[in-house]
Amino acid sequence: MSMMSSTKTDAIDWSKGAAYVNGAFMPISEARVPLTDWAYRRSDVVYDVVSVWDGQFFRLDDHIARFRRSIKRYRFTPQETDAELRQILHRIVAMSGLRSAYVAMDCLRGQAALGIRVPSKAKNYIACYAAPFTSLVPEEHLQRGLKLAISTIPRIPHECVDATAKNFHWGDMNMAMFEAEETGADFPLLLDFKGNLTEGPGFNVFIVRDGVVATPDYNMLEGISRQTVIELCAELGIDVQVRPISAAEVRDADEIFITSTAGGVIGASQIDGRIMNNDRPGPVSSELRETYWEKRKSGWHTEPVNYDAV
Amino acid sequence: MSMMSSTKTDAIDWSKGAAYVNGAFMPISEARVPLTDWAYRRSDVVYDVVSVWDGQFFRLDDHIARFRRSIKRYRFTPQETDAELRQILHRIVAMSGLRSAYVAMDCLRGQAALGIRVPSKAKNYIACYAAPFTSLVPEEHLQRGLKLAISTIPRIPHECVDATAKNFHWGDMNMAMFEAEETGADFPLLLDFKGNLTEGPGFNVFIVRDGVVATPDYNMLEGISRQTVIELCAELGIDVQVRPISAAEVRDADEIFITSTAGGVIGASQIDGRIMNNDRPGPVSSELRETYWEKRKSGWHTEPVNYDAV
Ligand SMILES: Cc1ncc(COP(=O)(O)O)c(C=O)c1O
Ligand SMILES: Cc1ncc(COP(=O)(O)O)c(C=O)c1O
Repeated sequence: MSMMSSTKTDAIDWSKGAAYVNGAFMPISEARVPLTDWAYRRSDVVYDVVSVWDGQFFRLDDHIARFRRSIKRYRFTPQETDAELRQILHRIVAMSGLRSAYVAMDCLRGQAALGIRVPSKAKNYIACYAAPFTSLVPEEHLQRGLKLAISTIPRIPHECVDATAKNFHWGDMNMAMFEAEETGADFPLLLDFKGNLTEGPGFNVFIVRDGVVATPDYNMLEGISRQTVIELCAELGIDVQVRPISAAEVRDADEIFITSTAGGVIGASQIDGRIMNNDRPGPVSSELRETYWEKRKSGWHTEPVNYDAV
Repeated sequence: MSMMSSTKTDAIDWSKGAAYVNGAFMPISEARVPLTDWAYRRSDVVYDVVSVWDGQFFRLDDHIARFRRSIKRYRFTPQETDAELRQILHRIVAMSGLRSAYVAMDCLRGQAALGIRVPSKAKNYIACYAAPFTSLVPEEHLQRGLKLAISTIPRIPHECVDATAKNFHWGDMNMAMFEAEETGADFPLLLDFKGNLTEGPGFNVFIVRDGVVATPDYNMLEGISRQTVIELCAELGIDVQVRPISAAEVRDADEIFITSTAGGVIGASQIDGRIMNNDRPGPVSSELRETYWEKRKSGWHTEPVNYDAV
């Protein structure tokens, strides 16, 4: 691995982030995908995202393991081992100097020689970047609670594109974002063709009814924050069900919250214009949010960034 | 528009292609998409591809019109007008010097400021490139006829991602390509959830039965080569039906052919291992292929590239 692709080392502002692309390290602004790469032109790519908070990776092993499963599911054969990937991730965070970071790792199909259209003939490669940490929503929305709306656009079915392998097939969610914005909502929730809840653009969804927490079991990414919440519920003695959830249950829920690496647990205050919990995140959502961040701060499932790795 | 982004003009080999990205012209090797762009990270992008053969664009107006429809369908607002786009396409072909070219135009979402996740806040832009023309398959396969196989993976439904607006949601087709390769086929054909034919990776599909030609009417790109074949059939006095086509009809067809900007009309000789027409493209497929290329060579629907546009 070469130290960096640019020669103008002194002029570079690393605080916007650092990246690794197919063997080379560089500032994030230089990290690009060829316009002709199938990762872009056929969305033939898988990825993962892990967070760093206060100098600590959260569940890095779990994210690397899920990334490797996504890689295998979509038949990629990158060169980097898990151990090398871990080093790369530490190093890009160290290069950026960021104490809190959003750290993405992509596996790209690449492309074959001109005129060859068979994906198995392409040379796959890894690209990663570390950028300043951002939450799904601004701070004031966390307090106020999210406004959610059930989208009219169904989520791409599992049979077509397996969402448990993290991918960029967001066309349904992109249009659902426009739809949500028009109805004054922050985010859409997508249903499957049976009318059951799946997930939203960048997050899993939980409902709370009579103190019992429930989250879908099918046609969505098995989020690591979702897994974390399931573990926290067990610790806190809260019942959790992993099962199909109808749109009607979502609309009638006592509380709704979403989970994501970009923010942990975030409570909602409105669903399709109906106000829940006096227009604020509900008590179970808030308890889980607080516990999530307390546990992270206490070192649970964390791994310190090696800032000497530059 | 600046002439080009690189300063090393003399050293550049333009024969591999030329590109335009958001106002700047450059050799194709320099045309890249930021790793953080939503066009890549959310596959939030539409595109079109037009061909140049022997110095002539084919149906350029139709491709630009379809590109504009895709842009509107997915709510992009690029700056370039149709007239500017046409100039850009002429210019990149002229810069490349290619007499036969595959010419792509993409409209990318871009991205919003850090921490903003709403697609309406992004600044959209156009990227185009001209590369040497390549057919879907090598020349010898054209003579031998394609080996096709019906995929077990269903096409992403229209309700989730509208395939009439040309997009990069190819996850289903990417995996179907691996599947086809394993069964010894050149290309997969994808069905919808009802078991009706849709399209394949980069092409529309036609069947021939008792001299009557038929092609699907739903859940696929309305290909410009498909439209061309429908017009040619009318001229040649061949009946064409645009209607749902079951998998059984595909398996029992007298002939199957595919249509694409990358090669025009290409006949098949095998479907799911069954040999058709003595293992060669059938007579109707061959007549349509020949007529397609004769008409193109005679100047039908063509527009000469302005090679002085550099
Ligand atoms: C579609 C989708 N679902 C769910 C999630 C949540 O997963 P995690 O908690 O692992 O971040 C994400 C995260 O980006 C996502 O993109
Ligand atoms: C999915 C898909 N279907 C059909 C086609 C054929 O369309 P056209 O004849 O306009 O090239 C393409 C062309 O790239 C395609 O990508």
